[in-house]
Amino acid sequence: MRRHYATIKDIAYALSISVSTVSRALRDTHDVNADTRKMVLEMAAKLNYKPNFNATGLVKNSTHNLAVILPAITNYYFSTVFTGIQEVAYSNGYNLILYVTNDDAAREENIVRNLSFSSLDGLLVSVSSKADASHYFQEIIDDGVPVVFFDRVVENIRTSKVMQDDYNGAYEATVHLIRNGYRKIAHITGPAGLTLTEARLQGYLDALQRHKLAVRKKWIIHSGFSQQSGEEDARQLWKLNDKPDAVFAVNDRKGIGAIISFKQLAVQVGKEIGIIGFTNDPMSSIISPSLSTIAEPAFEIGQRSCQLLLNHIRKKHFIPEEVILPGRLIVRESSRRS
Amino acid sequence: MRRHYATIKDIAYALSISVSTVSRALRDTHDVNADTRKMVLEMAAKLNYKPNFNATGLVKNSTHNLAVILPAITNYYFSTVFTGIQEVAYSNGYNLILYVTNDDAAREENIVRNLSFSSLDGLLVSVSSKADASHYFQEIIDDGVPVVFFDRVVENIRTSKVMQDDYNGAYEATVHLIRNGYRKIAHITGPAGLTLTEARLQGYLDALQRHKLAVRKKWIIHSGFSQQSGEEDARQLWKLNDKPDAVFAVNDRKGIGAIISFKQLAVQVGKEIGIIGFTNDPMSSIISPSLSTIAEPAFEIGQRSCQLLLNHIRKKHFIPEEVILPGRLIVRESSRRS
Repeated sequence: MRRHYATIKDIAYALSISVSTVSRALRDTHDVNADTRKMVLEMAAKLNYKPNFNATGLVKNSTHNLAVILPAITNYYFSTVFTGIQEVAYSNGYNLILYVTNDDAAREENIVRNLSFSSLDGLLVSVSSKADASHYFQEIIDDGVPVVFFDRVVENIRTSKVMQDDYNGAYEATVHLIRNGYRKIAHITGPAGLTLTEARLQGYLDALQRHKLAVRKKWIIHSGFSQQSGEEDARQLWKLNDKPDAVFAVNDRKGIGAIISFKQLAVQVGKEIGIIGFTNDPMSSIISPSLSTIAEPAFEIGQRSCQLLLNHIRKKHFIPEEVILPGRLIVRESSRRS
Repeated sequence: MRRHYATIKDIAYALSISVSTVSRALRDTHDVNADTRKMVLEMAAKLNYKPNFNATGLVKNSTHNLAVILPAITNYYFSTVFTGIQEVAYSNGYNLILYVTNDDAAREENIVRNLSFSSLDGLLVSVSSKADASHYFQEIIDDGVPVVFFDRVVENIRTSKVMQDDYNGAYEATVHLIRNGYRKIAHITGPAGLTLTEARLQGYLDALQRHKLAVRKKWIIHSGFSQQSGEEDARQLWKLNDKPDAVFAVNDRKGIGAIISFKQLAVQVGKEIGIIGFTNDPMSSIISPSLSTIAEPAFEIGQRSCQLLLNHIRKKHFIPEEVILPGRLIVRESSRRS
């Protein structure tokens, strides 16, 4: 339905030369000879290639549309980030086209491949958890489309990124449990391989090591990010002979799932098992016992991401920035022994 | 920043004739004489008026963009409706431009007045609670832009609307409380004047009347839709000499607020005061005691709204439809006396 927009890959394919040569020719770097450059430019014109936006300094045709790609919107964290994005977009006269991937890698790729870049100024993206997203995002970044990642970022792509301080938040959450007398601390987390899960795992591991506490493989469970995954992980932990006495959950939804399972198992949350989450979802103060957590600056992450993208769009030569915003420990009932 | 797009109002103003005459001339109805019609068409051409979309059957320039206007997105109901909209939009190759009004009437009007209609095929709208939204939406509907309202609809505009069955849901919620032995039933609700609040109020009143129970003005409180408003309303009810023994809350957030206040006041929810909400927000099953509610078909409302809008866009002559989807009673702890 949508018109195809030629990429540098199409040009490379048509000329049987490398994508990198095409990219360099379009950018007019010194190491491409004049004939190659001429050939590339002619093919680009023939294929109606639009060297988008600021890649070659063509900012004139601003569409005032930004695309936002999220795993889910029925989720406190992402809807709050979106609200922060919207505040900056609104006050700058930008429209937001929102795509929800349902945390599905194939859908994410399909959405990105079908974006109408001629009517977009840039992208704000939190990748879906199972996506090997690097290739299709790298292509559009090579095409000069400004992209800012937030929260669930792609490690090996060099573009701007906005994140909470996952490592230090996890470290602080774990140390909080240790200070409250818990010694056998489990970690229930999302899929391995995401920057977010890896950083939180490392913060947890370093806190245990610094305090000379045991790390047990069976106490570290990778599954999904949902409440239901949290419920299942907690039940799995409670089946172990060597049970933990505390759980650090990668997010509040999993922490809430764990509280629900432990209540069903008649395990006293706080006294018998300490629990801490990460997010500060409003549900964490509604559940009983209430869930201790690391509050994420979700609204601010949205604002900063959008501001960074606008800076990126407006400048010809924008150097990617990484912004890391601190979280904040909130102590509630789930991590109190008495 | 955005280019102005001439409306039928501009044409009417330029020719010093009525908007209705312009509208009829553009639609070529029998009651406009040939000279007037010619004059209108010439002025329309001069002002670069684009008789949008299906008003005059010009569906050819589909943009495949739909605008969605919502009071909030960090809210279970609206984010779920949006997800339903997104499912239908995605499978039909449509993009969604999302605008969040923060439930602010001035912002809503500003958003609507600045919409770039030349790059939109239609609108899905839930109006902000204090907006006298009829005038600016009526204008764009007169311009032939397909609009579908959902949930918070504008009563006096004739266009397609998708709603839950507010009246019967409220009636059922109230009867549920009566059947469980509660007799002095209060209603805490949102601002007066919205179709939604009026229908739920009427369902509540009719249920009381049918069961010959007292209606007390002091037991009916209009305030905001937030959890905090629910907390305040509950405290206000408990200050009365003649206290109610049950509360029907217009939504779950207010119901949850009421539970929180009554717990703080050491009033036993269920036993001393029955509470029922409306939505089936996931929080309602997380809070303790858990909140009885009328489950709204939020996802389906999103799907049906988007499907209706697409039908509207595709047909030359679309007759507005009103779709009313039933809710479902979910009984939890907050309305059990024992």
